[in-house]
Amino acid sequence: MSEIIPIGEKVLSDNDRLAAEIRARLARLNLPSLNLVSSPGSGKTSLLEKTLAHFGGRLRIALIAGDVQTDNDARRLAAAGGALVRPIVTGGACHLDARMVSRVLAEMELEGCGLLIIENVGNLVCPSSYDLGEDKKVVLLSTAEGDDKPLKYPAIFRRAALLVITKTDLLGLSDFDLERAARHARMINPEIEILHLSSRSGEGMADWYAWLERLTRRPAAAVPDAGGNPLE
Amino acid sequence: MSEIIPIGEKVLSDNDRLAAEIRARLARLNLPSLNLVSSPGSGKTSLLEKTLAHFGGRLRIALIAGDVQTDNDARRLAAAGGALVRPIVTGGACHLDARMVSRVLAEMELEGCGLLIIENVGNLVCPSSYDLGEDKKVVLLSTAEGDDKPLKYPAIFRRAALLVITKTDLLGLSDFDLERAARHARMINPEIEILHLSSRSGEGMADWYAWLERLTRRPAAAVPDAGGNPLE
Repeated sequence: MSEIIPIGEKVLSDNDRLAAEIRARLARLNLPSLNLVSSPGSGKTSLLEKTLAHFGGRLRIALIAGDVQTDNDARRLAAAGGALVRPIVTGGACHLDARMVSRVLAEMELEGCGLLIIENVGNLVCPSSYDLGEDKKVVLLSTAEGDDKPLKYPAIFRRAALLVITKTDLLGLSDFDLERAARHARMINPEIEILHLSSRSGEGMADWYAWLERLTRRPAAAVPDAGGNPLE
Repeated sequence: MSEIIPIGEKVLSDNDRLAAEIRARLARLNLPSLNLVSSPGSGKTSLLEKTLAHFGGRLRIALIAGDVQTDNDARRLAAAGGALVRPIVTGGACHLDARMVSRVLAEMELEGCGLLIIENVGNLVCPSSYDLGEDKKVVLLSTAEGDDKPLKYPAIFRRAALLVITKTDLLGLSDFDLERAARHARMINPEIEILHLSSRSGEGMADWYAWLERLTRRPAAAVPDAGGNPLE
């Protein structure tokens, strides 16, 4: 396996260089950006559908929807209306990388957009290693998945600025405990912010919208020009 | 990226050689084997806990529990009793590979065991590419994850002999439709067998136990000596 490590490092280094270019472009546009990471089925697309509907004409959102196969999510999200939506189909790759994002961003008219959201491939492991040039990583965890996941998949919880616990309408139907999930996440990342919500019932959605609004109202000087997840 | 492809092929080829060695050893032991793959939180460990408790002394199960971090699953499963349980902690790697499994198997006393189950890392993408020498791949999909997943993550559904739809106690609380999930899975793999069950309510568990029992009762001649998922 010894020949693999330098190549892996080179790929990450190329990725980091491209991510820095993306970050610089987004900073020039004063466009805050999120990279949403979760398991398959944690509810990323449903949350984004509601989010696009909520902000409607008030905030134009640029959205890149990554998937291993099919552009179904991108089509669902484009149907929600009001957003600039582009798919990335990785064709088998288990994560988005900065090269894929850079290519799609080059063809997007970002002027007039107030927020860029990148919906990563459904995978709690691989996307954690790839900087996409985003300001913040957001990790989603569904109450159906179990409150032990921060300990078992620590890398993404360590790098995320925000944990969104989804599907709270299913609380009580499993052993998932909100307090325990939060404690596990903070064991990995004491600085992580935590929200919990249900796209289905609407519970907690106002907190998510307020979190996004704070992100879009930050002063231009707060836009990072390097690095991953700046602490606020 | 051009320098990566040959290395990737070499890794897979080394993996396939080791997987063939594992398969030959398991065939000599007449030990049927499964590789369980799913998203994080689809209920692999809960299903295995119930399965170990069900078979108890009647069938000794050898179980390898893979995780990115922590051996919590292996400890949960060892506590269920009656099985020979060993952890693999990948330390960040997003899948098990044949080398990891081979090392652990070398230290397991498999004589007297009637079934080997390998619980892969929670990831619906990467594990699909790595043959571990198992007879059959089993993919789990929770009703909380959405019935579109076979189309979005086709590789593992194409290679699996069995789809187990889990958490049927949550049906009706989401848009998940059993018929649609089955149709999507069969679009990807017309031969795939499908079971649905709830470890929590017990519904459908008898079908899973019967499926495992059929696997353990097969004649020795049916043990494959090469290849991945032989059709029965």
